[in-house]
Amino acid sequence: MKIEILCTGDEILTGKTVNTNYSHLAQRLTEHGFQTYWGTTVGDDSGSLLTAFRQASERADAVIVNGGLGPTVDDLTQVIAAQAANQPLELNHYWLGEIESWYHKNGRVMPTNNQKQAMLPAGSELIDNPIGTACGFALNINSARFFFTPGVPREFKLMVEDEILPRLQAMRGNTIYTQVKRFHSFGIGESRADRLLADIEKMAPQRDVKLGFQSHFPQLETKLTISDTNQDTLKKKLEPLTNAVREKLGNFVVAEDNETLEGVIIQALAKSNALLAIAETGTAGGVLSRLLGCSSNNNITRGYAATNYDELCAMLDASNNTGIATNQPVVETVHQLCESAQCSIGLMVHLEHNQKSNESANISIAIGNKTGVHMREGTLPGRVGWTKTAAIELALDCLRRYLLNLPVYERIDFEQH
Amino acid sequence: MKIEILCTGDEILTGKTVNTNYSHLAQRLTEHGFQTYWGTTVGDDSGSLLTAFRQASERADAVIVNGGLGPTVDDLTQVIAAQAANQPLELNHYWLGEIESWYHKNGRVMPTNNQKQAMLPAGSELIDNPIGTACGFALNINSARFFFTPGVPREFKLMVEDEILPRLQAMRGNTIYTQVKRFHSFGIGESRADRLLADIEKMAPQRDVKLGFQSHFPQLETKLTISDTNQDTLKKKLEPLTNAVREKLGNFVVAEDNETLEGVIIQALAKSNALLAIAETGTAGGVLSRLLGCSSNNNITRGYAATNYDELCAMLDASNNTGIATNQPVVETVHQLCESAQCSIGLMVHLEHNQKSNESANISIAIGNKTGVHMREGTLPGRVGWTKTAAIELALDCLRRYLLNLPVYERIDFEQH
Repeated sequence: MKIEILCTGDEILTGKTVNTNYSHLAQRLTEHGFQTYWGTTVGDDSGSLLTAFRQASERADAVIVNGGLGPTVDDLTQVIAAQAANQPLELNHYWLGEIESWYHKNGRVMPTNNQKQAMLPAGSELIDNPIGTACGFALNINSARFFFTPGVPREFKLMVEDEILPRLQAMRGNTIYTQVKRFHSFGIGESRADRLLADIEKMAPQRDVKLGFQSHFPQLETKLTISDTNQDTLKKKLEPLTNAVREKLGNFVVAEDNETLEGVIIQALAKSNALLAIAETGTAGGVLSRLLGCSSNNNITRGYAATNYDELCAMLDASNNTGIATNQPVVETVHQLCESAQCSIGLMVHLEHNQKSNESANISIAIGNKTGVHMREGTLPGRVGWTKTAAIELALDCLRRYLLNLPVYERIDFEQH
Repeated sequence: MKIEILCTGDEILTGKTVNTNYSHLAQRLTEHGFQTYWGTTVGDDSGSLLTAFRQASERADAVIVNGGLGPTVDDLTQVIAAQAANQPLELNHYWLGEIESWYHKNGRVMPTNNQKQAMLPAGSELIDNPIGTACGFALNINSARFFFTPGVPREFKLMVEDEILPRLQAMRGNTIYTQVKRFHSFGIGESRADRLLADIEKMAPQRDVKLGFQSHFPQLETKLTISDTNQDTLKKKLEPLTNAVREKLGNFVVAEDNETLEGVIIQALAKSNALLAIAETGTAGGVLSRLLGCSSNNNITRGYAATNYDELCAMLDASNNTGIATNQPVVETVHQLCESAQCSIGLMVHLEHNQKSNESANISIAIGNKTGVHMREGTLPGRVGWTKTAAIELALDCLRRYLLNLPVYERIDFEQH
């Protein structure tokens, strides 16, 4: 089945808005076993819209059109769709009622130009939009089935899930269930992950599992996509593959599916009833910020951040005259942190850029409690922004490993060996 | 002149990669007075590519093609371009030499499949790529001029600036200089800014200035775009308009052009030789993180963050038993902050979500030194993530206003009145 995506609107055409609706839809189609065959972008211009609708209707089996369903004069989608399908526009009384009650609920009276949103080409199938005044609709133009969707991302995404994907599945004739299993790892690059997982696709007897990677530096996302007409078969097929990926990527997997690294840490802290305090320098308070950004952050007590290490020690009222290593977090400063913050676990992070080359930074992480402290040191190559991002991730990952009793010392691909 | 953008590659077509090359190019075209007329996305598929090239060649005067110039078998652009133009592929000896020396410089030998990158359709004009092995090229297909560019964003953007835009200007026949003046404001919504600046476009005698807005919540970007064949005339035209925008938006303008709010603060701190310490709760260390993220942050000494206000006071060794207002930063705590951190300016930020409605949060900001403290309080409507973002921006803006001797108390559109 050939599927096209047709995005409309001057804001998208002129690049004022980055077209994330397109990438979202194309991804969801891929994940449901559909192939996007063509993408078109045109502005709020009747001539372009008509040509685009006609050309798409000659190429594709299904066309998803996005945008142009608003109440203003530059929203032309219904008018041009009607023209392309040789149908008149008709008032959909049901949808008009929906718009009116939407305004009523919000304590307002519907402006007259919103009536336009209930005008649909004759013969259209109405597609519900439970959270907005622009309904979707489906219509045949030539031999292609067109699905018209609103441009507002929240409304669009909901309609894609609840209305468009099921209709496309019905068109395909059989319901194909697709599951995407995702692994978020830190510390291994895409090429190493690719080598480690070289035989994964072959493990599926029917070769119907797709392995994919997406790099969101400093994390790597590994995806297994699998489709089947039967949901139970799907689960059975996926299980050994999931286990194999977990085994191959090992301790580098920091989270799965919708979990995040910081979420896993927060959970582990809650489970062990631990109180964490953080002191960091060189990382712009990034470790703190990531953890405090989680909704249930009751197990984090305090965060100290400073622009240099001496200042950080001064904040903790700790002396740095240990003679062990200048400017390095040491056992004593973690003890001092636990003491000052009255917490059970202290995490100290110290990143310092290599003044000479300006192309690497030294990272020192100390984590522990009053009875024992783990140290993790290394050199991260790269420019300032890059090393900061990598250092924050490394510190969080060391904390995760510490909490889950995994080795804190395991080397990562992103450091100098 | 009709201009099309044609993006190629499975990663873009399937949504794996968000197409930011498209929006970048379309924006730059708009800013140079060109209009993008059509956008197409196709995959690494010869049939689709050939159709797309032919259709674009019939619609447009100029077509910018992006992607498909790499060394691997799925990079088909040169082959299909040659086919569409009815030309054979020829080895460009100059570019082959460039690729070889590129590899030589990097201490490597050119793999044989890179020779493919020097094969161009006969009659092509070579377009330089000083930072990569994929050269660009220009070629006529039917009556349209095609410009082929590499997919790597860094190489693509450089080629657009240095090679493509000048060639399009030459095609247009006259050099039109364009300047975009940008104002970053915080505290006024787009509709209010639109009203305030309603007469700006009319101020230009030839009505050749375009006013535009782009909302990057919580900031609003206001753009003046102006074009002229003479650079001096351009500057003269822009000056009164720039002054008018500054006057109308007043204290709400936090930065201009490439400046940032945090950068303006850092500059003001340096100028007054002030040392700043920050204590915050409820904002996930976000104020701290934004300021410490700047490159020259020597005037920021320390940051304290905690999940609740009592904990924050405990960190500062300050008593909260003031009896003035529970859980609110008060004069004494700012004094204590200045004292503990040995700094000249203290900023305390306290955000607390309204437990009842979960749809608003109370913000208290206290800023000052040992001799005087300004308070700024308010209620921000919205969900947790939204209020946090707004609160961080408000705190930074109050700091900016304090440092620049502007009123800290001015109400913003985003708070409950």
